[in-house]
Amino acid sequence: MPSEKNPMLNIRPATIDDVGLILQFIRELAEYEREPHAVTATEADLVRDGFGAEPKFRVLIAECDAKPAGFALYFFNYSTWLGRPGLYLEDVFVRPEFRGKGIGKSLLLHLARLAVQENCGRFQWQVLDWNTPSIKFYESLGAKVMKEWLTMRVEGEALKRLAEYEA
Amino acid sequence: MPSEKNPMLNIRPATIDDVGLILQFIRELAEYEREPHAVTATEADLVRDGFGAEPKFRVLIAECDAKPAGFALYFFNYSTWLGRPGLYLEDVFVRPEFRGKGIGKSLLLHLARLAVQENCGRFQWQVLDWNTPSIKFYESLGAKVMKEWLTMRVEGEALKRLAEYEA
Repeated sequence: MPSEKNPMLNIRPATIDDVGLILQFIRELAEYEREPHAVTATEADLVRDGFGAEPKFRVLIAECDAKPAGFALYFFNYSTWLGRPGLYLEDVFVRPEFRGKGIGKSLLLHLARLAVQENCGRFQWQVLDWNTPSIKFYESLGAKVMKEWLTMRVEGEALKRLAEYEA
Repeated sequence: MPSEKNPMLNIRPATIDDVGLILQFIRELAEYEREPHAVTATEADLVRDGFGAEPKFRVLIAECDAKPAGFALYFFNYSTWLGRPGLYLEDVFVRPEFRGKGIGKSLLLHLARLAVQENCGRFQWQVLDWNTPSIKFYESLGAKVMKEWLTMRVEGEALKRLAEYEA
């Protein structure tokens, strides 16, 4: 829907026809995050996992003056403390030439409304610790840094080794 | 399945009949995490969200000598870099009287095998920064602390305010 403050902005759910654009946004975000070579996902992966009978993620596209300006990719997690799902924002990105127009904020507000509609108790995402402007922006919207919680990850060869470990 | 090193240990998927036990484990874990009053989930919440047509989470129960010893609660997230799902471990807990028998390790190995079977590129979870013994244990299994990534969260009244914000 168009925003009142920015009538040229439209936020809509992605369709399968957006897959090429979504992959492009994912690559642009990885470049911004200083990991341009980390993206090995293909369009076929995104079609299979995002646009089948049981999508593993959902995507919003932000268009400004009918041009693709940014995206948000999310899915649902679960809080055992609250006994309710949570909305987890995996990726959010606004192209540099469209920044400063409130598009990132509009995407986050849209997701907060979705979270409430879906009975979610929480809306979460992660941010790189050097990205101070984003952290300050998120805090201005009511988000808190969960400083006590560290993320642990096993991937690649380490995951294969763990799976093959003889207990 | 029984583990070779610990023939008294059995790890099995939970059924709807385990919901009371699962809620008890969630409360015991919250107490261990120094947040005993944070659990507002009910059995009805867990039945609705975990044991319907589209479960929002899945649970493994570890039994030692036929007694409930621990649990792991997980769901799937998504990596846009890899174009593959990830396995996310929300809760893992072993009751104090059953610790030191390799039960936590067996649960993690079981989940790593599930992650590989489900084409996951990653297996992730979070740990409290003061929980040094657990961090060292996870690292010994090949997990890495993702130090750069901070978790941001909006919840409760702040989430409602964000959802009602007029853009």
